[in-house]
Amino acid sequence: MNAPLANDVFLRALLRQPTERTPVWMMRQAGRYLPEYRATRAKAGSFLSLCMNPDYACEVTLQPLERFPLDAAILFSDILTIPHAMDLDLAFEAGEGPKIGKPVRTAADVDALFVPDPATDLKYVVDAVALIRRELGGRVPLIGFAGSPWTVGTYMVEGGGSKNFAHIKGMLYAEPALLHRMLDVVTRATIVYLNAQIDSGAQAVMVFDTWGGALAPAQYREFSLDYMARIVAGVTHEREGRRVPVVLFTKGGGRWLDHMAATGADAIGVDWTTDLADARALTAGKVALQGNLDPCVLYAQPEVIRQEVARVLASYGAGHGHVFNLGHGIHPDVKPEHAGAMVAAVHELSPAYHR
Amino acid sequence: MNAPLANDVFLRALLRQPTERTPVWMMRQAGRYLPEYRATRAKAGSFLSLCMNPDYACEVTLQPLERFPLDAAILFSDILTIPHAMDLDLAFEAGEGPKIGKPVRTAADVDALFVPDPATDLKYVVDAVALIRRELGGRVPLIGFAGSPWTVGTYMVEGGGSKNFAHIKGMLYAEPALLHRMLDVVTRATIVYLNAQIDSGAQAVMVFDTWGGALAPAQYREFSLDYMARIVAGVTHEREGRRVPVVLFTKGGGRWLDHMAATGADAIGVDWTTDLADARALTAGKVALQGNLDPCVLYAQPEVIRQEVARVLASYGAGHGHVFNLGHGIHPDVKPEHAGAMVAAVHELSPAYHR
Repeated sequence: MNAPLANDVFLRALLRQPTERTPVWMMRQAGRYLPEYRATRAKAGSFLSLCMNPDYACEVTLQPLERFPLDAAILFSDILTIPHAMDLDLAFEAGEGPKIGKPVRTAADVDALFVPDPATDLKYVVDAVALIRRELGGRVPLIGFAGSPWTVGTYMVEGGGSKNFAHIKGMLYAEPALLHRMLDVVTRATIVYLNAQIDSGAQAVMVFDTWGGALAPAQYREFSLDYMARIVAGVTHEREGRRVPVVLFTKGGGRWLDHMAATGADAIGVDWTTDLADARALTAGKVALQGNLDPCVLYAQPEVIRQEVARVLASYGAGHGHVFNLGHGIHPDVKPEHAGAMVAAVHELSPAYHR
Repeated sequence: MNAPLANDVFLRALLRQPTERTPVWMMRQAGRYLPEYRATRAKAGSFLSLCMNPDYACEVTLQPLERFPLDAAILFSDILTIPHAMDLDLAFEAGEGPKIGKPVRTAADVDALFVPDPATDLKYVVDAVALIRRELGGRVPLIGFAGSPWTVGTYMVEGGGSKNFAHIKGMLYAEPALLHRMLDVVTRATIVYLNAQIDSGAQAVMVFDTWGGALAPAQYREFSLDYMARIVAGVTHEREGRRVPVVLFTKGGGRWLDHMAATGADAIGVDWTTDLADARALTAGKVALQGNLDPCVLYAQPEVIRQEVARVLASYGAGHGHVFNLGHGIHPDVKPEHAGAMVAAVHELSPAYHR
């Protein structure tokens, strides 16, 4: 039995319920900018060992909460756990990012894909979620997550990170039915995976669509958004007597926020290239918005950070339904005190917008 | 005295004048996807030697016109000729992209910048333009170009390509006045540089803002668009009895097309992540539009290319003022025949939109 939730301002904001201030967390808040993260990672040996050891994953998940008054914890993991569980030979090479040893390029490759069983193939994630929930002791909610099928698919087809997405876009234009078959398996795998995280204690879930913005509008809707919509429909919506909100985030998706809101998601992440005022107008009160400070603002001095936080809060304006965040993950070379200055500014300046 | 222009459909389309079909050219049409380009580059030795030798620059500029019925030639050069002329120690390392040996980081670095004299410091470009005009013999117009001050500035401050733009964004947020001083010098240099290209024979000019899309909206307007607006105002508007159209292109600038159109530019380049129908609505007939096929479409088979060309033409719809192009430069691993299939499809399918 988990402890009752002491701070639920994040969950209320995601559901556009009244809050006394704007909640705040940071994408990649458990990460390389923290020396204590780098120490745990050194103990773990590799990035994958860190993800796959529930004790270490729990340790780094909680680290930023010890430093900053954040309103949510997010499971420490990676969006490529699903292809890893599909036996596609995932490795993280130092300085090179992820590599998929067995990329998915042919009909035979797609036929060989399967939906991993979270209870066995992804047990380390389920265990980490349960452990983190216990260790959080009800301080703040825990966010579970997965990559969007399109984004995870780019790594599966390209065999790693990519600049042009030549292989997967080649497949998209030349063999769309094959790509749809692949995305269908990844989507089914993602739904059972997120539901296992929710069963194990995740109180909100977020879908990261890092590469949806590389698509043309019609292709975005057909090959990324429609699969995220299936995920929104397929995840467990209530647990422990509360709604489990779903957040969708497409980097570079500013023009498509209305379509994203129409999926039924509770909240939409917005990167820093869209004004929250415009995002709010485009989504017409249908969803909460999460974002959107340019992560590079944290390179500046604390007084500048405070002023830019003020600008983001003013851009959203008066009313509930805003979760403060960066517009993308925190950069590894940011000073931790600068992240602290951002969090402090949100605490100080946001109550004025909730009266 | 240059030969009269046999095919001016490109120039007329940029000015939204009637044309019998949609003109077509490709960003990076003189480039690595062509074996004849790779042969000339091998003769030249390095990328910089290729840019700096007017004979070679002319040779590669004309190569795609021998293969495909394109409606414009574009000067073969690089957006970093200006920092090179500013003695910032530019080098292109194989497989690593450009490096600036003396990055601009301090007030003293900015003070040391100067406006290069095109007649001496950039003579190789001016000579290449004159030679290409002569060799074109009036077949199609010649486009001159420069990078946007923000985009060129990213290389000058970062010292090369960048993922996060940590240095220049650090400067933007911490020392905006210093960054403005640097952008002012680059802007003045760009105006005299483009005017030298026009004096030497360029019949249209294009400003490439490859990295403006990495900025938040207010910062885009202040640090990229305002400087492009100064360029639009500062370039020679008429030459040889014709208007010299100016095209602005911000990659990822789909949300800001209305602001771009308000600069007084004749045409706006649009990348593939925005529908031309939306771009046309947003710019309300004030400018011509250039774009916007996803360059990855050229990985597909010719029949798919034709279908996607049809989709782009239909998205712009009936009427003049559309220049067909890719939404970004052609990828180096595209088959030349696939580029040819795109050009042929525009010739075949576009007259229906001009009746």
